[in-house]
Amino acid sequence: MVQPELAPTWRITEWLNTPEPIDLEAQRGRVVVACAFQMLCPGCVSRAIPQMKAVHELFAPQGVLVVGLHTVFEHHEAMMPVTLHAFLLENRIHFPVGVDTPADDGGHIPKTMQAYHMQGTPTFLMIDRSGRLRQQLFGHVPDLQLGAEISQLVMESVPNEAGSVAKPEEVPPPGARK
Amino acid sequence: MVQPELAPTWRITEWLNTPEPIDLEAQRGRVVVACAFQMLCPGCVSRAIPQMKAVHELFAPQGVLVVGLHTVFEHHEAMMPVTLHAFLLENRIHFPVGVDTPADDGGHIPKTMQAYHMQGTPTFLMIDRSGRLRQQLFGHVPDLQLGAEISQLVMESVPNEAGSVAKPEEVPPPGARK
Amino acid sequence: MVQPELAPTWRITEWLNTPEPIDLEAQRGRVVVACAFQMLCPGCVSRAIPQMKAVHELFAPQGVLVVGLHTVFEHHEAMMPVTLHAFLLENRIHFPVGVDTPADDGGHIPKTMQAYHMQGTPTFLMIDRSGRLRQQLFGHVPDLQLGAEISQLVMESVPNEAGSVAKPEEVPPPGARK
Amino acid sequence: MVQPELAPTWRITEWLNTPEPIDLEAQRGRVVVACAFQMLCPGCVSRAIPQMKAVHELFAPQGVLVVGLHTVFEHHEAMMPVTLHAFLLENRIHFPVGVDTPADDGGHIPKTMQAYHMQGTPTFLMIDRSGRLRQQLFGHVPDLQLGAEISQLVMESVPNEAGSVAKPEEVPPPGARK
Repeated sequence: MVQPELAPTWRITEWLNTPEPIDLEAQRGRVVVACAFQMLCPGCVSRAIPQMKAVHELFAPQGVLVVGLHTVFEHHEAMMPVTLHAFLLENRIHFPVGVDTPADDGGHIPKTMQAYHMQGTPTFLMIDRSGRLRQQLFGHVPDLQLGAEISQLVMESVPNEAGSVAKPEEVPPPGARK
Repeated sequence: MVQPELAPTWRITEWLNTPEPIDLEAQRGRVVVACAFQMLCPGCVSRAIPQMKAVHELFAPQGVLVVGLHTVFEHHEAMMPVTLHAFLLENRIHFPVGVDTPADDGGHIPKTMQAYHMQGTPTFLMIDRSGRLRQQLFGHVPDLQLGAEISQLVMESVPNEAGSVAKPEEVPPPGARK
Repeated sequence: MVQPELAPTWRITEWLNTPEPIDLEAQRGRVVVACAFQMLCPGCVSRAIPQMKAVHELFAPQGVLVVGLHTVFEHHEAMMPVTLHAFLLENRIHFPVGVDTPADDGGHIPKTMQAYHMQGTPTFLMIDRSGRLRQQLFGHVPDLQLGAEISQLVMESVPNEAGSVAKPEEVPPPGARK
Repeated sequence: MVQPELAPTWRITEWLNTPEPIDLEAQRGRVVVACAFQMLCPGCVSRAIPQMKAVHELFAPQGVLVVGLHTVFEHHEAMMPVTLHAFLLENRIHFPVGVDTPADDGGHIPKTMQAYHMQGTPTFLMIDRSGRLRQQLFGHVPDLQLGAEISQLVMESVPNEAGSVAKPEEVPPPGARK
């Protein structure tokens, strides 16, 4: 198996549902599940968003960070931030959502979407406690598989600086400060 | 039973998916099924819109006119026509959709929504061959009931000028000209 | 269009959920919707039976007779009447169900199933007020279509002896006695 | 948290879909997921059985043993083994299914169901690599949760005789012989 690489940095212009921007690199020790979506993509609204809400409810208490990435690559003028704000309210989305940065060159594909070579929306990203991109899944993912794959990352031990492992239970909870 | 009244006139600022505005009063002799929706209403996107697409596919060949009414009563700035255009494309909606006219007085409820005293979205309107509003249903309507109620209107005879009735089969098809 | 023929007589060995056997020929003036099923057929249990229960709830008040036909054509020894009784209880089926008569010649296909040339289960039969078989549909039928087709038969006028027509509203309700 | 206890022994009269009876005690080192069901229980047929088939497909390659337990506690005469055989064929169930032993005293609740104090069907049992009953869930379990809980047990290390732990990858696959 190819060794998974570190998840590329997210390029976000605006964060919603969070008091501070989310720095992916600062999440080491924590499992991160992200879903790239567009609010006018029917498969996102009907299936992926309800799944992510359920993932947030089930896994946030286990320390998993659930994030939405609004990766607009078509109908840009139709999906402005003002509409995204209303979309989050109407769909009762309470986890953080970042707006992907438009391409510099006037291209259609925003920067985070480019960095991950995404094929479209929805795309699920699963990032382990070491910051490596372990899964990237485009399209519909059955709930049974989604739950299994996230749980697998949650159960993995955390490498510490000395190279020994800590049990997941010893990872400080998400809100903890040292 | 109270005699159903004529369906109030629609107050539309812009029509999409149709070369000409749709005049409800000109549809006499034809069954009309309309769905008032908002593109950011999750129940509309997940359930009512797919139902209306199925209604259009099943009943348009029987002469039924299927129409969407975009009745924005919240987050007005988030649901502008440019976004509605993209929404229709993304959801592959091919039947006509009219944009309800905003209230004069700066109120939230647009004019057609007011005229029908709608409670919210989605709301289904079923209008018979005589132009009478026979059903107005707010919220989710099971497919079995929806199919039954539309079919009932389709089967009803059409009163002609002299007061006698024509069988439904004798009604000219929707695109016919005399 | 070929003129629909009279629905063949049902050949039933035992009726459940009804005090008296149901004579199809005695139902003239009434719309009859039947579903041929097998209790071990997964598509019947998951989809057709719940549909028929919904059809019964929606259309029985409109005078439609809803009937199940247990047409066992495989695993005969596994689907004996004692098991069917329990099946009806567990699935809360309250409409009449008739057990199709096994073939005389030791064949697999029971007699009613043979008479209708059914391809398998579930099969829906729609019989109009004149006793004609208007629709026979094998497999899954979407609710919207099912509701529409039953409603169409309900709305049709009833030919009386003199050849004139009565409006559906004048048909005596199912339990009425003259 | 209360220390989970060893899963009680299964009391089975007949095994289907397996060349040899399954001895629960012999499964140490392996995760076992069982579903107690009745073939005439609608929630079992519509939801739990399809879930168990998906669990088998997803987790059997990871060494999980998926088992059905036919725990008849009502309509005993309606759910005899001959009918269960046909049920497995019709529902395309390929994992092993054991028939729970009827009560000695003429009671309704069969012996395995009694030993686990089950409330009804479906009931999911999740047994870890050490043979402990880690979860017992009655009724519908969402796929996301089911996948997460099974994956958690799969990821747990296996205690060996000396008390040290082996990584899951080092567990011999299910069919392996030493």
